[in-house]
Amino acid sequence: MSAPDEPTVADLSEDELLARIFPHLPRGSRTLVPPGDDAAVVRAPDGRVVVSTDVLVEGRHFRRDWSGGEDVGRRAAAQNLADVAAMGAVPTALVVALVAPGDLAASWVSGLARGLGAACAPLDVGVVGGDLSGGPAVVVAVTVHGDLGGRAPVLRSGARPGDVVAHAGVQGRSAAGLALLLAGRGDADPGLVEAYLRPDPPLLAGPVAADAGATAMLDVSDGLLRDAGRIARASGVVLDLDEPSSAFAGDLERLADAAGLLGADPREWVLTGGEDHGLLATFPPGTVLPAPFRAVGRVLPVGSGAAGVLVEGREPDARTTGWDHFAT
Amino acid sequence: MSAPDEPTVADLSEDELLARIFPHLPRGSRTLVPPGDDAAVVRAPDGRVVVSTDVLVEGRHFRRDWSGGEDVGRRAAAQNLADVAAMGAVPTALVVALVAPGDLAASWVSGLARGLGAACAPLDVGVVGGDLSGGPAVVVAVTVHGDLGGRAPVLRSGARPGDVVAHAGVQGRSAAGLALLLAGRGDADPGLVEAYLRPDPPLLAGPVAADAGATAMLDVSDGLLRDAGRIARASGVVLDLDEPSSAFAGDLERLADAAGLLGADPREWVLTGGEDHGLLATFPPGTVLPAPFRAVGRVLPVGSGAAGVLVEGREPDARTTGWDHFAT
Repeated sequence: MSAPDEPTVADLSEDELLARIFPHLPRGSRTLVPPGDDAAVVRAPDGRVVVSTDVLVEGRHFRRDWSGGEDVGRRAAAQNLADVAAMGAVPTALVVALVAPGDLAASWVSGLARGLGAACAPLDVGVVGGDLSGGPAVVVAVTVHGDLGGRAPVLRSGARPGDVVAHAGVQGRSAAGLALLLAGRGDADPGLVEAYLRPDPPLLAGPVAADAGATAMLDVSDGLLRDAGRIARASGVVLDLDEPSSAFAGDLERLADAAGLLGADPREWVLTGGEDHGLLATFPPGTVLPAPFRAVGRVLPVGSGAAGVLVEGREPDARTTGWDHFAT
Repeated sequence: MSAPDEPTVADLSEDELLARIFPHLPRGSRTLVPPGDDAAVVRAPDGRVVVSTDVLVEGRHFRRDWSGGEDVGRRAAAQNLADVAAMGAVPTALVVALVAPGDLAASWVSGLARGLGAACAPLDVGVVGGDLSGGPAVVVAVTVHGDLGGRAPVLRSGARPGDVVAHAGVQGRSAAGLALLLAGRGDADPGLVEAYLRPDPPLLAGPVAADAGATAMLDVSDGLLRDAGRIARASGVVLDLDEPSSAFAGDLERLADAAGLLGADPREWVLTGGEDHGLLATFPPGTVLPAPFRAVGRVLPVGSGAAGVLVEGREPDARTTGWDHFAT
């Protein structure tokens, strides 16, 4: 799994491996006790701490022939940081547990640290702790922390009829990048492949949305329809999305060439593609939407049907969206 | 890996699996937003949060033929909670990422949740988040949080010459239990086997030690000599431990039968056995040691040698302790 002249994890002592990791990890200005003791201590000025954990497993969430260590580090950080942003909080610190097979190149591990650092340092997020173990596959478990700065957390359950549905970030690009890789045509659009390997969510938009009065929010990790359905059910409402041709015109245009190449439907990527980690939020009627949010639908009361998602007033068609309306 | 009539992880949907997990998980009175949203929100009244993460991997840290899910849950919780206690903090919440092979019995997973709950509920620690994934081996990654309640965190680096070295908890029992299992003689002393499978650290003693003025502290996870060496090096001092026959007389007595059975040296278990997760701390001279701490040595200045550990003024003998003085 590594070049013959390159050391593997098994070739190094734990201290030698840590010496290749630590230089890449930002401390973060809120970190009071950095790694090296039994635990780290991080400022939580709000008096509440936002916490979320996500795990990436080789062969399930990434392939080592597609994703280098730095890609996985950036992705693990981004998807966790997006969970904090989606609560309306500012991320402050994360910790990482890494399980690595002995034949993993040590450079993959330092790449992972570099990727975590690249995602965290610009936000002043410290990487404040970790644990290393051997094991049969690469597993990266990240736990992220955030501070609400006095804001009320924005839950999934606060959407009310009349609210505007808004989205910040991109949709469908990660799915398109994955489709290109699966077809062996990653060369055709490296930008979309990068969107899959290294999602770049609009993290700062989370607290901005909270300040603007967002009533509900989440990050789109499993697809627009599916995640909109989660807000709808948690809030007991219907989210009626605009046709992607208007609401996501820019994404559709960006996806057109790749869709043409693969004979795919870009509308399906926009509606059902996950892992772009954009933010989907609802705002009270009349709210001047803060950038980069744009309106993509409206919240309706539950009528004769159940809480759920519509597109232009109609149930999404499984034939054209690939979406199972009944799955969660 | 499971009885033929018993469902495996692969037999259940994620929602069905979660339905077997959630009932066992305590919410914790400090939890403001429980699992189910993008992230949880937990009170951090001190304005600082203590954070540590630890990962357990099947085949490395536990064997499924020895440890049931509940054992692994209790152990994962205990070793993480001990890290928070060792900072002088009160644990408040933890999150868990679980990687599970498809053939893992669903009852193993609910057992894991039961074990986490059993360790956390009595301390009012909430299990506030998690993530589930498939993978080739069971991996349990826990991140724990704690609140300092106004105390200064007790680091490893604060021991000063003249301080008393003190210990709370048991030593050597986990190592003895593992030795019995390895010899196929777990039946001979189920109490020691349980000490290995389900360590029960003196978690409340951590904040008590901080209140009593502890100058340095850690939990003994890698053995008394090795972990005492960590305090010594971080503090730039020598920790001179008493002979186990006086300081750990109770532990030696408890281990005598198992040691006789296996032809092992109970003194070695006490000095080098890890994973009991007792607390090793230093206190200023004259401190009335708070229960259950007892004096086990003294802090000396670095003389002609280096910072490190002595036993009754002498370097520990690798022949009799199995301890590599030069390893970290």
